[in-house]
Amino acid sequence: MFYPEPLAKLIDSFSRLPGIGPKTAGRLAFHVLRMKEDDVIDFAKALVNVKRNLHYCSVCCNITDTDPCRICQDKSRDASIICVVQEPKDLVAMERTKEFNGYYHVLHGAISPMEGIGPDEIRIADLLKRLSDETVEELILATNPNIEGEATAMYLSRLVRSFGLKVTRIAHGLPVGGDLEYADEVTLTKALEGRREL
Amino acid sequence: MFYPEPLAKLIDSFSRLPGIGPKTAGRLAFHVLRMKEDDVIDFAKALVNVKRNLHYCSVCCNITDTDPCRICQDKSRDASIICVVQEPKDLVAMERTKEFNGYYHVLHGAISPMEGIGPDEIRIADLLKRLSDETVEELILATNPNIEGEATAMYLSRLVRSFGLKVTRIAHGLPVGGDLEYADEVTLTKALEGRREL
Repeated sequence: MFYPEPLAKLIDSFSRLPGIGPKTAGRLAFHVLRMKEDDVIDFAKALVNVKRNLHYCSVCCNITDTDPCRICQDKSRDASIICVVQEPKDLVAMERTKEFNGYYHVLHGAISPMEGIGPDEIRIADLLKRLSDETVEELILATNPNIEGEATAMYLSRLVRSFGLKVTRIAHGLPVGGDLEYADEVTLTKALEGRREL
Repeated sequence: MFYPEPLAKLIDSFSRLPGIGPKTAGRLAFHVLRMKEDDVIDFAKALVNVKRNLHYCSVCCNITDTDPCRICQDKSRDASIICVVQEPKDLVAMERTKEFNGYYHVLHGAISPMEGIGPDEIRIADLLKRLSDETVEELILATNPNIEGEATAMYLSRLVRSFGLKVTRIAHGLPVGGDLEYADEVTLTKALEGRREL
């Protein structure tokens, strides 16, 4: 090793992160060397705190530092709708729209036989438990519009049929600001199928 | 904020690093959430250790956890040659060649009037002190082959003239594995100027 050990260790830690190769890891480590000590200590604390103070919400399975999470604690929301998403990031994307006022359920993945992920590997059992306990009227399936997400949505829609609730899937179509010319055939077909009267 | 506070703080810390935007910072933070706790603690320790246990070598100004650094401690090296580089990374690049057996001097920058960096902002004074104290015969100027690096090399070559030592500059030319077709004019001109008899 040409680098002094503390630096080599930090480069190693950075390069274990996804999408960060040895060159970028080196650049980041040298940046840390030039950072203020307080900022570096804050960074280190933030790392450990994420691991120690975050867990899954016992209701919606979102990551949270309180239990239940802030959304599940919010009594002003509409308890009759649950929106099912794959990841906490998807929940954040939904919240950013400010258009949805129900509760969420985070699956933490999608069914993917290719990767060996079956219905038992994601938080479907927790969802079924909620559906039998709570007075839910509509289940919005907001899994990703790809093979795994579609398969999960299809699986869930059949699974919850016995609860007799309304099950909806978010719409497929052209993204706003998109361009017809560059849209792929499948998206365009879906946009055509899902056309609405003006 | 839609993210729980510990996660938001970590995303903030990551996004302060160079070349890491908010999206990548989010991805990295979620990765940390899935890492083993021990690995995260190691990462945090590595960050703090880099800041606490590294300093500049009192001889060559390289970053080191010992003083003098391991290279300056190595008595088997040739004390008659000092290779001047801009950054610790450049020293590592030189060491990787395994062709250089002298000592180094790290300037920590290059003269750049545009950025307000003059000769006093980089470690030139330390170099002059070494030249008067040690028995150096050759000074290799291995600053970067760009405007700032060239300016620094020119400045240094004039500055050390009074010491009566050999001052050399690393060669400009085509990189090995390169392609004449794609070489820029300046590099090709330098390659032509620096041609050697076979």
